[in-house]
Amino acid sequence: MSSIEVTMVRIYLTEGKAHMEQLIKRLHDVERVQGVTVFRGVTGFGRHGKVHSSTLLDMSLDLPLVVEFFDEPSRAAEVLEHLDQIIEPGHIVSWQARLNV
Amino acid sequence: MSSIEVTMVRIYLTEGKAHMEQLIKRLHDVERVQGVTVFRGVTGFGRHGKVHSSTLLDMSLDLPLVVEFFDEPSRAAEVLEHLDQIIEPGHIVSWQARLNV
Amino acid sequence: MSSIEVTMVRIYLTEGKAHMEQLIKRLHDVERVQGVTVFRGVTGFGRHGKVHSSTLLDMSLDLPLVVEFFDEPSRAAEVLEHLDQIIEPGHIVSWQARLNV
Repeated sequence: MSSIEVTMVRIYLTEGKAHMEQLIKRLHDVERVQGVTVFRGVTGFGRHGKVHSSTLLDMSLDLPLVVEFFDEPSRAAEVLEHLDQIIEPGHIVSWQARLNV
Repeated sequence: MSSIEVTMVRIYLTEGKAHMEQLIKRLHDVERVQGVTVFRGVTGFGRHGKVHSSTLLDMSLDLPLVVEFFDEPSRAAEVLEHLDQIIEPGHIVSWQARLNV
Repeated sequence: MSSIEVTMVRIYLTEGKAHMEQLIKRLHDVERVQGVTVFRGVTGFGRHGKVHSSTLLDMSLDLPLVVEFFDEPSRAAEVLEHLDQIIEPGHIVSWQARLNV
């Protein structure tokens, strides 16, 4: 087994599906990161303390969404630099990890 | 782009929605962490090997739930200290990360 | 509060439920890791850029699945070594974390 260093990135969105699709499109078409997975939370709250939740889960447009990807550290740093211009501060978390290759 | 160090925390629950809502309320009202996201797993098993799964996903009260938050390391350490009294051992994982600010 | 070092592992699958259930069974019956949680993404794309998504979320067999577990570093390393033979390269990410015990 061999592995390389990667940066894991998680972007926290709460602004509904349109914003998410725009971000995914950018990561896919422009940034060309190697892979992206989007998770939807079942509830959550943000900095302003407003709870985003739903009893009709699949209908809601206001549930938390997390866009996750990983890439080589230098590539991830470039992407983070670009995202900084479109994602508001306090919504992107990143850390170092190992990827099996 | 500037970033600060944060501690990522993930709390693994399997005891149904009531327990989760109590924890969220505490993190929101008492601990006042900056943000929380809750994810529901589609299946899983815990230390005792019992599989928590469901074909009627949205109906189940026994699916894995993960409560995730991040905050400044000193703040997160305080919260972890408090959670230690209400969450059983072996269910809270944490690590250092960077938050874009 | 005391804590021990663990390795967090996330395995990214897109090949449908059958593959996932086989992996879970192995982690449960053979590897006997202490706990596993499986998350389903709502959309995503992989190395080949093909977008895996669905409007009929609960029906889809082709949505991203993430299988997550953590265990002591030496135990996790053994499991990673075995998984290397059944999971294609570039789909397993791992990093060090602390577990409250």
